[in-house]
Amino acid sequence: MRIERTQWDPAQNALEESLFHTANGYLGVRACPEEGAPAGVPSIRGTYINAFYDVKPIRYGEKLYGFPETQQGIVNLTDVQNLRLFLEDEVYEPLRAGEVLACRRTLDMERGLVTRFIRWRSPKGREVEVTVQRMASLAQRELFIMRYTVKSLNFSSRARLISREEGAVTNFADPNDPRVAGEALQHLRVEEVRPMESGGLIRSRTLASGLELAVAVGYALPAGFALSVEARPAALEARMEGSLEQGQSLTMTKYAVFADSRRHPDPAQAAPVILAQARALPVTHYETRQRELLEAFWLRSRVTVRGDEALQRSLDFSLYSLYCSAGRDAVSSLAAKGLSGEGYEGHYFWDTEIYVFPFFLMTDPALARGLLDYRHTILPAAREHARIMGHDRGALYPWRTIAGSECSGYFPSGSAQYHLSGDIAHAFLQYYYATDDLAYMAERGGEVLVETARLFLDAGHWHEGSFRIGAVTGPDEYSCVVDNNFYTNAGAQETMRGAAMITRRLMEAGLAGRLLAATGVTREELSAFLRAADAMYLPYDETLGIHAQDDGFLKLATLDLSAIPQEKFPLLLHYHPLWLYRHQVCKQADTVLAHFLYEDLADEDTMRRSYDYYERCTTHDSSLSACVFAIMAARLGDMDKAMDYFRRSATLDLDNAHGNTRDGIHTANMGGTWLGLVSGFGGLRVKADGLRLHPRLPGSWDSYSFPLCWRGSRLRVHVTDVGCRVEALGGEALTLRVYGQPVRVAPGQAAEVPLPREE
Amino acid sequence: MRIERTQWDPAQNALEESLFHTANGYLGVRACPEEGAPAGVPSIRGTYINAFYDVKPIRYGEKLYGFPETQQGIVNLTDVQNLRLFLEDEVYEPLRAGEVLACRRTLDMERGLVTRFIRWRSPKGREVEVTVQRMASLAQRELFIMRYTVKSLNFSSRARLISREEGAVTNFADPNDPRVAGEALQHLRVEEVRPMESGGLIRSRTLASGLELAVAVGYALPAGFALSVEARPAALEARMEGSLEQGQSLTMTKYAVFADSRRHPDPAQAAPVILAQARALPVTHYETRQRELLEAFWLRSRVTVRGDEALQRSLDFSLYSLYCSAGRDAVSSLAAKGLSGEGYEGHYFWDTEIYVFPFFLMTDPALARGLLDYRHTILPAAREHARIMGHDRGALYPWRTIAGSECSGYFPSGSAQYHLSGDIAHAFLQYYYATDDLAYMAERGGEVLVETARLFLDAGHWHEGSFRIGAVTGPDEYSCVVDNNFYTNAGAQETMRGAAMITRRLMEAGLAGRLLAATGVTREELSAFLRAADAMYLPYDETLGIHAQDDGFLKLATLDLSAIPQEKFPLLLHYHPLWLYRHQVCKQADTVLAHFLYEDLADEDTMRRSYDYYERCTTHDSSLSACVFAIMAARLGDMDKAMDYFRRSATLDLDNAHGNTRDGIHTANMGGTWLGLVSGFGGLRVKADGLRLHPRLPGSWDSYSFPLCWRGSRLRVHVTDVGCRVEALGGEALTLRVYGQPVRVAPGQAAEVPLPREE
Repeated sequence: MRIERTQWDPAQNALEESLFHTANGYLGVRACPEEGAPAGVPSIRGTYINAFYDVKPIRYGEKLYGFPETQQGIVNLTDVQNLRLFLEDEVYEPLRAGEVLACRRTLDMERGLVTRFIRWRSPKGREVEVTVQRMASLAQRELFIMRYTVKSLNFSSRARLISREEGAVTNFADPNDPRVAGEALQHLRVEEVRPMESGGLIRSRTLASGLELAVAVGYALPAGFALSVEARPAALEARMEGSLEQGQSLTMTKYAVFADSRRHPDPAQAAPVILAQARALPVTHYETRQRELLEAFWLRSRVTVRGDEALQRSLDFSLYSLYCSAGRDAVSSLAAKGLSGEGYEGHYFWDTEIYVFPFFLMTDPALARGLLDYRHTILPAAREHARIMGHDRGALYPWRTIAGSECSGYFPSGSAQYHLSGDIAHAFLQYYYATDDLAYMAERGGEVLVETARLFLDAGHWHEGSFRIGAVTGPDEYSCVVDNNFYTNAGAQETMRGAAMITRRLMEAGLAGRLLAATGVTREELSAFLRAADAMYLPYDETLGIHAQDDGFLKLATLDLSAIPQEKFPLLLHYHPLWLYRHQVCKQADTVLAHFLYEDLADEDTMRRSYDYYERCTTHDSSLSACVFAIMAARLGDMDKAMDYFRRSATLDLDNAHGNTRDGIHTANMGGTWLGLVSGFGGLRVKADGLRLHPRLPGSWDSYSFPLCWRGSRLRVHVTDVGCRVEALGGEALTLRVYGQPVRVAPGQAAEVPLPREE
Repeated sequence: MRIERTQWDPAQNALEESLFHTANGYLGVRACPEEGAPAGVPSIRGTYINAFYDVKPIRYGEKLYGFPETQQGIVNLTDVQNLRLFLEDEVYEPLRAGEVLACRRTLDMERGLVTRFIRWRSPKGREVEVTVQRMASLAQRELFIMRYTVKSLNFSSRARLISREEGAVTNFADPNDPRVAGEALQHLRVEEVRPMESGGLIRSRTLASGLELAVAVGYALPAGFALSVEARPAALEARMEGSLEQGQSLTMTKYAVFADSRRHPDPAQAAPVILAQARALPVTHYETRQRELLEAFWLRSRVTVRGDEALQRSLDFSLYSLYCSAGRDAVSSLAAKGLSGEGYEGHYFWDTEIYVFPFFLMTDPALARGLLDYRHTILPAAREHARIMGHDRGALYPWRTIAGSECSGYFPSGSAQYHLSGDIAHAFLQYYYATDDLAYMAERGGEVLVETARLFLDAGHWHEGSFRIGAVTGPDEYSCVVDNNFYTNAGAQETMRGAAMITRRLMEAGLAGRLLAATGVTREELSAFLRAADAMYLPYDETLGIHAQDDGFLKLATLDLSAIPQEKFPLLLHYHPLWLYRHQVCKQADTVLAHFLYEDLADEDTMRRSYDYYERCTTHDSSLSACVFAIMAARLGDMDKAMDYFRRSATLDLDNAHGNTRDGIHTANMGGTWLGLVSGFGGLRVKADGLRLHPRLPGSWDSYSFPLCWRGSRLRVHVTDVGCRVEALGGEALTLRVYGQPVRVAPGQAAEVPLPREE
């Protein structure tokens, strides 16, 4: 289970920095060359802590009422990647001078290690092998370990290693790409550089948010090497010197501990303690723990496909990346780029709930619940956001945020995306259905559901007997501020029904105390939720027999996408938004996604016609689109098309298909890949009345299988061309529906379910 | 004909600086205290040249494709207002110390002079009268004259005057008001300060646009006074000393000449020449010319109302202000605030064509044609703007601009206002109807019409047999980016028909050469214009029997405006735009305005029902609204309501009804006031088939009258309670329609037309 590159292409450097980044849900370090990237080689040198942010002003050409004045952004941290190797008078600069004789970069997804190996001949003929191994510890989140091994092949010499912890760092920016920050800003001010015994500490503070970061580093040297550590302006520099004999291999280990004030009351006190603990144990301890944790991860999560090795690798890469990206505490979630880059500035979007959450929910419900905790943590900010947006009640989740406030500088495809509140409610309900965890609903879930339901009740209005919601933006950002977006209205309907249902269950179970105290929700309000939900207006076009994306969409000018030259995609970088708004063109799945999430709203024919119609309009300029089309193509039985979309989704980052993986991996798409397989081919649906499967085998595969977790029980589903086998691995006996029929499985047993004849 | 204030209220200082500004269409000087405003007294010290701008970057929270990167803004110029008077050891600071015994500020609209008179007792008991008289010469645009007269009432002393020309000036800003600039920036860099004989010169250049400004000043001293002029950093300082005897009155005259590089190839060479010419003539020469020019202006323009003196004053003030605001060359037009302040940053909007142009068209067609020339000048920029917005052909006029490029930083209520191109086409057509000037159409008008028609043809699309235009914003900015805005579609229809009609007339007259060369328009294209125009979709609600503002408006949530507290208005400063977009609420007349401009599209009942419906939705938060409701109320026969709206319009600035006249006068509303009287009560319409009048007398007036110019003929219309009298003052005999009936008048004759019996 590894990703490997054995070619060095300078143009791909920033891309590979993303793909081979090292992360553990808390800390992320891009795979930047330790010796620095030569001039002309693209590089985004970055290290990040999940949810560790600074605040900067948002500037507007015209600032209207309620526009957010500031924006949070993930901070590029103290750079601990710098290591320079000197062999007598020569410096090891394989990307700049001499000759690279062999190179190999590896991500080992069983061991949780990234390795960079280079065999190099210096300009003076010295041949050396340098192997750098990186690990962001899954057992100790603050800990990043680099092992630097040098082997001389044909010489003996003095060797010097200079390691530099650089505190004067800035964030990456591109003023012309709305998907990354517009200005390169320095966010960290170094407050203290403290050399310590065999290492040191750099303490910094973010300029505006005032968060504190302490980075403690320590070195384990090869025998015979001498260390000196000195404070430099905003940096620490460690020099290690000794001798390297021909044929000898030397290893230096660097420990870097990142502690921040969002998790530690005194980071500068905590970091050295954690560092000391780490150094008291052998490196192998952390390597072993890493392997054990990943073994458990793969056991509960791994999806296997027989008959397509490359695809298997992509699937593994996706799930591994998600595991390394997901926050493990209530102040963090899973950013659009995980911890692999600065794209979208480390913000959390709906990506988490709609694209990634289902994977964790069905494989690691405790981690999934942590993602919900985050949304509960920022509920006060979502309430405040609703007030700014003109709602007397309810909570409107921000389109993009880290600490809770709206960070979008363009509300038509920002705050106007009211569906976010429905997406979050959907995740809470899915969690409840999959876990039966009513206690969690009593403690947190009910409050989020009631507050989001209130938002929709306040946002909508009654018109001609139906309940409508004007002036919102759906998932498709090529239409903005529309009336009655089908997806949004469907989500609002589910949210209001879900809030009423959960509240009533809590009342019946005598568990509603906390919810009532927190929200003061009344029975009248629940009735109002249900009345609005029952009367929800869901635009349908009788002529076309499809759900309309919104009230106006189907009357707009049509567009022949095939007539647009390939280099004009993604359209958002080549057309004014108003031109896009004027046409029937979609950046991504919108109504088609609604038909996946809210499938009871459409019959088979409506789904099929809608799919066909919107497929013609959709550019898939968003990385969130292909997987949804894969799921729905499978749902509608078009397995070839499903496979096409599924491959696009599965290989997006490894193939750099969107051309911007340098800014970070696309985590939503990775979750979508899992969905494509499990909900697409596997037909998984999480429903109030239980688990449903409808597995089908794509023609090009021999078989596939995936594990599932359902209300404490663990299952594995094996799918072949004759049907599927559902194996219960633990927990209690349960009944699920497979191909529409109830199937009961008890622990240790398996049920074979043949594919229905008509399929 | 004067506006006068005899009270000094410090809180009103910035407001009075606007009301008593001095301007001549080229140069504008706010009425700031010569001695400086004391701390705590609001003051916006400003001097402007029409269309003299700098360029600054527009910053965006998220910059999408095609958003303008820079913005033009009017520049606050070298400040020549500073004059300090010293009487021995005391300084004349009437607003800060001592006692104001009497004060009077006067705008004399017959003489074109602003006078500030103060009788003051100093802390030591010196009593003095200071009279400052200002004139921006209508005869010599670059020339601004200040006469400073000091009279000693009870003392004799040495007197010293220090005049300072300050080059280090900045623009005014308010970061929280989208209607003024967000950042206070210095735009002028002083390049040279040159003392000269009895005066001096300051030469400056704008930082980004590189425009040059030269200000030459000269002084005429009281007898016995000595002058010394010195260069200071970025300033000139002139000291004048002499003695003042008890009872004596001394006058110092300061000439300031502003020459800029948009009008002069070498401003620093031109300014001293113009100054020398001016000084070679007595001041009375310019005073006489000023009076003569204003006499002619009033003769051709003045509207008189008998029975309401205050209203008469407001009307005079409006027309006078318009005359002083309108650009007289092809690089300038008439800014939203004229030359009285920095609101809307000196930009030109549709205000000019729809609200102000009719007044000039009907009283001073040559000046009106100059305003059209400006639009022709910026046609290349409008073509470029269309390309940015995704149109292969046609010209899209920018929402706000000085030199032609789009200066709006928020496109939903900026570039999306496609109606601007229709508004401009409308003005060209009105000009043609009122002047029969086919030569102008051959030279300029046809090109603008064809290019705007092309824009609409490209922006629209065919759907179910009708021609529709999606994703635009109409005049009402509380709804943005809507489909089939009635107003916009109506304008597009007129534009396409007008372009076809004018082109055919030019072809028939053998005058189409220039147009064909410039546009390559074909007969096929003209047919396409007409097909689209004939099939134009004009949304109509069958149930309500009204024209729908757009496809979605009438289905939005309704809003009870009376339930919103008064302090929440204007809503745009207290509600997020998305909240406004979600409701049936209008900032200003939209469909109601369409029913005025394009009255053939609606029958009487539709107009009335629409008026009633939209009146309930409209906040009149825009100063462009009341006058339109006045016109349409009169049109529909509700004279009381018409009078209410008319008064609101007529007194808006003098009463500071919108609370922001400190940022400048509201020129569009002033034009609207004229329209309210002449098109509202007078029923004036300019049609392809001639001039129409339908005059009615409001109950509270004895009579009113207004002059008109029609195809070279001059008329005056007197209206009483029994009908009207149309007097032909000059030109040829003409036939117009009064109360629907043709009436023929020959020069020197008058026709009495009785009010039809049914009215």
